[in-house]
Parts: sequence; C-alpha cells; structure tokens
Amino acid sequence: MIHPVILCGGSGTRLWPSSRKAHPKQFAPLIGDESLYQQTLRRFAGPDFAPPLIMTGEEFRFMAAEQAAALGLSDAKVVIEPVARDTAPAILTAALILADDPEARMLVAPSDHVIGDLPGFLCAVAAGTGAARDGCLVTFGVPPDRPETGYGYLELAAEPVPGETVSLKSFREKPDQETAEAFLAAGTYLWNAGIFLFRVADVIAAFEAHAPDLVAPCRAAIAQGRADLGFLRLDAEGYGQAQAISFDYAIMEKAEQVAAVPLTGGWSDLGSWDAIWQARAPDADGVATDGPVTAIECSDSYLRSEEDGMQLVGLGLSGIVAVAMRDAVLVADKSRAQDVKAVVSALRAAKVAQADEYPRFHRPWGWYETLCLGGRFQVKRIMVKPGGVLSLQSHMHRSEHWIVVEGTAEVTIGEDVRLVTENQSVYIPLGTVHRMANRGRLPMYLIEVQTGSYLGEDDIIRYQDIYDRG
Amino acid sequence: MIHPVILCGGSGTRLWPSSRKAHPKQFAPLIGDESLYQQTLRRFAGPDFAPPLIMTGEEFRFMAAEQAAALGLSDAKVVIEPVARDTAPAILTAALILADDPEARMLVAPSDHVIGDLPGFLCAVAAGTGAARDGCLVTFGVPPDRPETGYGYLELAAEPVPGETVSLKSFREKPDQETAEAFLAAGTYLWNAGIFLFRVADVIAAFEAHAPDLVAPCRAAIAQGRADLGFLRLDAEGYGQAQAISFDYAIMEKAEQVAAVPLTGGWSDLGSWDAIWQARAPDADGVATDGPVTAIECSDSYLRSEEDGMQLVGLGLSGIVAVAMRDAVLVADKSRAQDVKAVVSALRAAKVAQADEYPRFHRPWGWYETLCLGGRFQVKRIMVKPGGVLSLQSHMHRSEHWIVVEGTAEVTIGEDVRLVTENQSVYIPLGTVHRMANRGRLPMYLIEVQTGSYLGEDDIIRYQDIYDRG
Repeated sequence: MIHPVILCGGSGTRLWPSSRKAHPKQFAPLIGDESLYQQTLRRFAGPDFAPPLIMTGEEFRFMAAEQAAALGLSDAKVVIEPVARDTAPAILTAALILADDPEARMLVAPSDHVIGDLPGFLCAVAAGTGAARDGCLVTFGVPPDRPETGYGYLELAAEPVPGETVSLKSFREKPDQETAEAFLAAGTYLWNAGIFLFRVADVIAAFEAHAPDLVAPCRAAIAQGRADLGFLRLDAEGYGQAQAISFDYAIMEKAEQVAAVPLTGGWSDLGSWDAIWQARAPDADGVATDGPVTAIECSDSYLRSEEDGMQLVGLGLSGIVAVAMRDAVLVADKSRAQDVKAVVSALRAAKVAQADEYPRFHRPWGWYETLCLGGRFQVKRIMVKPGGVLSLQSHMHRSEHWIVVEGTAEVTIGEDVRLVTENQSVYIPLGTVHRMANRGRLPMYLIEVQTGSYLGEDDIIRYQDIYDRG
Repeated sequence: MIHPVILCGGSGTRLWPSSRKAHPKQFAPLIGDESLYQQTLRRFAGPDFAPPLIMTGEEFRFMAAEQAAALGLSDAKVVIEPVARDTAPAILTAALILADDPEARMLVAPSDHVIGDLPGFLCAVAAGTGAARDGCLVTFGVPPDRPETGYGYLELAAEPVPGETVSLKSFREKPDQETAEAFLAAGTYLWNAGIFLFRVADVIAAFEAHAPDLVAPCRAAIAQGRADLGFLRLDAEGYGQAQAISFDYAIMEKAEQVAAVPLTGGWSDLGSWDAIWQARAPDADGVATDGPVTAIECSDSYLRSEEDGMQLVGLGLSGIVAVAMRDAVLVADKSRAQDVKAVVSALRAAKVAQADEYPRFHRPWGWYETLCLGGRFQVKRIMVKPGGVLSLQSHMHRSEHWIVVEGTAEVTIGEDVRLVTENQSVYIPLGTVHRMANRGRLPMYLIEVQTGSYLGEDDIIRYQDIYDRG
C-alpha cells in the first residue's frame, strides 16, 4: 500500500480570475467537471493506495473535505497547516504522521497538476516503487517536448527510459531560452514535476541528516495539534517555527540516494493561461475554448466562459486569452500570461474585491452567492449540504425572507422550529434569533431576500456554531 | 419654431452586445448616463423648438415614450411605424402630420448620433434656417479630419465656411481608401450626417415631384391610423405599400434646391466600436475605458464593462475592443469592428438568445431581468413604474413569491386586493388569477421567486391588459 500525500495549500493567482485567494486553482474545475484536486484524488483511488493524507490551509479545510466527500472518499485525512511553510515542512509532517509504519511508502503530489495518461503514470509509480524499496528518494519528471523556460529541470546521469529509474545528477532552476534549448537537445533532462515517492523511514532519515532544524518544530506541531471536526489541526506555534523551504532545496538536492523516473506525456502544471490553452488541445488554428464561446476567425487563442448564461464571442483575435466570469473578465495578450500574477497584485493594491474574493463563498455548511445587491436589499442564492447547519444568529440591521426552491430546510425562528420545503417561505424579522439546517439527504437550495439599511456580512451575532467559528 | 423629427426606428447590431434587436443602440446609455436618444431629445429642448415628433417601431414605442418622459418631455408625440420602410417614408409621413402649418420648418435627425459641440450645432441650424426659408432642402455635413471609408460624403460647390450654407454638387457613396484620401485633400467634401432642415411645404412638394408613389401610401397610413394609448399608430396596410427607400436616394439626390451647412467637430454616428473608441477620447496610449476597467500596458484599445460588479481587466492588449455585459462578452480585433454585424448574424443562426435578446426586458409597465434560472425555479427582479399595471393573469405551471424591496405594490390575488410594501411578501398559488400595480409616485421594485415545472414566459393566461397586448 502506498500512502498518497496531497499538497494543496497553494493559492496561485496566475490563473485569475478562475483561481483566487478565496478559491484557488486546485479547487476549481479548470479542466473538465471536477476540480484539479478531485482529479488528483481520483488518481490515487485504486486498490494499491491507502486513504489520502491531505495537507492544506486553514481557509481551505472545508472545501478540501467537501470535495473529497463528493467523490465518496470519506476516509481522506485532512491536516491543517496553520501557516504556510512551503513543501519541506509539509512533507516532513506527513511522514511523521505516517511514522507508525516506517516501511510504508508515501507518494507526494501537488493537487493542481493535470496528468493526461493515468496508466502511464501508474506504471511510472510502479517503476519507482522498486527504487524506493531500496532506500531511494524517487522523483518524477517529464521528458520535455519544447524548450520550456517556465519549469525547473532534473539533470539525469543517462537518457531516461519509460518504466525505469535513472540516477539523478542535479536539480536545475528555470533556465533561460538558450539553456532550455540545450537541455531539450541533450535528451538527459526532465521537467521537474514535484512528485515524489519514498519510504517513510527514509525521508525522515533524510530530514534528520540534511534539515535537522525542521524536525523538532514539525514533531511539536503534531504533538500539540488537536483533532477538530475530523481535521488534524497542527499547532500554529510549533509549525510556525519551521523554516519555509521547498523539499527540493532542503532534501532532494542534498540527499545521496536519489533517482528519477520519467512520466509519459499529458502532464502539465497548468501554471498559467497559456499552459491551460496547451492542455486544452487547441484546434488547427490554435484555438481552444471552454463554455459557451463563439470564436470567429480567431487563431492562437484561448476563450473561456465560466457562466452558462454568458456568451463569450471572439472576433479576429490572434494570441489572446479571454476568461469571462460573472464578476470579472480577463482579456490578455497570450504572451503575457505569466504577468497575470502582477495583475492580481495591482487589483489588490487598488482594493478591487475581485482580486481575492470569489463570487461563490464557500462555508462549512455549503455556499452562497449574491444574485443582486441594491441600496437597501440583497438577493442571495444559498446551498446547504446534507447535514449542514448554519450558526444560530441574529442581525441588527436586516430582515430576511427565505424561499426554499429545492430540498427541505429545518428553520428555527425564536423558539419555533419547523420544516420548510420547496415553494414555501418564511420571514425572519430584524433582531430575531434564527437558524437554518439541512437534515435531509439532498442539497437544499434557497433564495434569501434581505432588506435593511446595512447588509454587510459582519452584521451577525452568533449564539452557537457547530463549526466552531469565531 | 422648428419641429424636431427624431428618427429612431433602427435596430443596429454593429454595437453588439450593447445594442441588440430588443434594445437598440439609440436607447442604450452608450456614452454618459443618458441614452443617445435622450441626448438627441435634449439637443432640441430649447425655446426655439416645438415638442418633438418621434418616428419609431412598434416594439420600441414604450421605451421611446418612457425615456422622453424621464426627461420631462411629456408632450413628445410618438408615431409608430408598423413596418420598417427606411427614412423617406418616415420623413414624408412626419411632414404630412405637420402639414397644418406648411410654413413650419422641420429638423430631421437620427437618434443615435453624438454631437459634442451643441452651440456649434445650433449655430449651424440657425445658418440653415435662412436657406430653408428660401425654399432650400438643407442637409448638414461634417468636415472630415481623416480619410474615413465608413461614411457617405457630400460634394460641395466650394469650400465650406462655418455658419454658412454652400450649394451641393452631389452625394457620394462610402468611398474606398484612395478616394477618401482625395476627398480629404480636396477640402470640398463633408461627411453626410443624415440631418436635414426644410419647410414642411417644400419637402412635401419635393416628394410630389420626385417620389410621387410614396405620397398616397403615407397619406393613407395617417388617415387610417389610430390614436392608441397616446401613440399615433400608422395603418400597417397603407404604410406597408410605401417603398422602403432612403431620403437621400428618393429626394436629396434629385431635388434642385439643396444646400449644405458644415457642422463643427465632435460629431460621430457611433456606427461601430471603433467609432465609440474615437468618441471616448482615448489617452496618449490610445486606450479608452468605460465602467469598472483596469487596463495594464495596453494600447490602441477600448475596454468597456456595463456591470458595476464586473471588473474587466486588459493586459498587454493592442488594437482590441472588449465589451463585457452580464450575459455576453465581445472581444474583437479593433480593425474588425465593422464585422460585428456578421457576428450577430452568426449567433442568430446558431440560435444563441443573446444575439437579439437583452438581459433587461422592457415592458409598457416597466422592466424585468432574470437573476437566476434553475431547473425548477427562477428569480426575477421587477421594476414597475408609477402608474404601471401588469395584466390580470394566471399561470398553469408555476407559483410565485413576491417580495417588495422598494416602493409599494397593489396586489390582486383572486378577489383580494391589498397593498404590499417594502419588506413584505405575498404568495401567488399556481392557477390563481393575480395582478400587480404601482399606484404610487415612485418606482416599485420587487423580487419574484417562481417555482414550478415550466417557467417560460408563454405560460400566461391574460384576462385584462391596459396596454392592449395580445
């Protein structure tokens, strides 16, 4: 059995507006109907794999658990990193959590990549397993098909052969164009995919040898951590004392027994919109589209609309990326895709909410989105998942009308508890203590119409909250 | 006194998505907060002008009346052209309606142009008035500042002098680039602005001389027409027999006594997105924006977002037009602006609703827009203007919840009539006869939540309708 360790603490902004701080790339259905994180989980759902260990941030814990549960993976273990500390402390912590079985192998993978060829990937994992059994730290790399300057490279001792390990000479930073071309020509370089396989005991030993300062903080983070609503929440003080450093720097570049296995095609880190364009298999004119899009006489462009009811039309475009969402639209020169990160910084500096916020707000009980915001009213669409319970609360400045449009709500108003089902409504007067829950087995959808002089999210007095929020 | 005759029957698609069949260009606030039609009406609101005569189509009559009323122009007369017949029959009909005073002058203007320099325009009108008094048919033209191939030209007998009439040699079709450059160099050509000034008797006489076949149908259309809710509805059979032909072809090119007056700068027909870009005074990099837009390292581009909550970001663009609306986004090469018309045809052929429909549906009583459409529910925002009354109706397949969020509604449900005000709600069970009206003095806004198995607009049985709709 291999223990998958899924790293999903990142909050990349280079795929804005689809990826934002409040809803990062790995949780977005960027390619296909499932999120990249879900696609990653699926990759490790076979009989050779133990339930996954998921390393994520405080703000993503419910999303990580919910998306895993949606795949039926109710035994996924979610570990909360209270502060971001890069990959080395995350991997060490995962290893320490699995240390009861030192012979166990762990496969560490980012949650935001795409792997087109699953059998090929599993083959490579099988090839790496032998080396890992011999005490190697195994990394996986992708044979380059172009002189890409956006990835780091693995320098090999020999030409890679599919299904076989090869020893590793060095790690190389993102190269310039000329160096990238030389790497491609040499045939002994792989793109560094950030995927690793090793025995738990071996990686802990490597940390003790090459990054001993990380060990005590990570041990403390686990020892002082606490189980919380099914999550393991690492202790913030302990984890915070670990240095933020990548696993490549801390371990792989220093360890002696390292090996690489080539992955077959179809891999992408989806690191920017031009990588998405590439992964979407553009047509003969170089045009790739997603969603309700009409492209007329375009070439070398990616057009994406994330709303069913939003028709995106491209006319005579060349080398353009356009991504349309309900609250934000990006139109960029495709060659500038790497600069989208800077765009988000500029929006953040200008205090544009869309820089970080996502139109659908995820909460432990489900999600909500604003349909219409007027001067003295707001209309929201709310989904409460089965078992979801909103906090017992009241508002100082607004009344609320709730109309259930799908499923059944259990509604508390003052002392009164009643069931409200499809096509029924209730009224929550200003100041009244109230709560909404879904005790059913299907998602419950309702429309909330708020009226009042102040409609901010912070007009809330919480009396009780099963999710332990402040 | 001069009678303004405003032509607003067009339904241009070259400014899609802002201009659509259901909500054409002249009624859209393309530049500034008021529509082009309203800006046109304002131009003629001075003491020298009689109340305007507005020639428009069946489907735009309420919008034309409503937007005029919003400016306080309650004495505007709206004439309904039951079928589109181009400008010659419209102008002749207007003249025949004004024929009680044959000495009266009429100033005919399109409703979808912008005129930046109002004093200059009024000066030009004053200059034309003298010539009109002498029996001339006067047209206005704009001294070209570039070799524009998108306009027709007026060839003059001499160089034009501001504030003076000049006799006209010929009308010239849209030229090719070379010819346009020759026109510009010659200095004796003006862009044809489609604005005319003449005495009622003179223009009728010109029609009798040069287009006599039009006279009987237009006379019949008026004689058989009927007053209808304050509109004059021309008889469809009579008007339909008039040939569809432009005023330039039918009259101006044939009449003997014709003169031109130059208009000073600031005129544009806003005929395409590059004309809008030009009219919006682009900055030193050639970038013009409207709405919540962030342009980063862009040049020679127009970026427009029509929604307050929709942030449009341009990155590294050059020569691009991007227009974002809630239900449609256009991204086009600016040099292809003239082809947007073809885009709309393509969308129409593909049965994309956004080709012709507008997200806000205008009705005689106000408007509505869909906020959210689910499988078995729909949320609408509805505005009923003061005095607005929806038809007495029932539905076979849906129930409705109404929540008033601003103003007061008079609601009829079966035999019961009651007032519903801000923060109150009512429920309309499936099959119940109901009606909503605004008897107040302020607009009334409500949120409607429909639930049912079929939510189409055609599930409606009308029992009574003050607007006489079928």
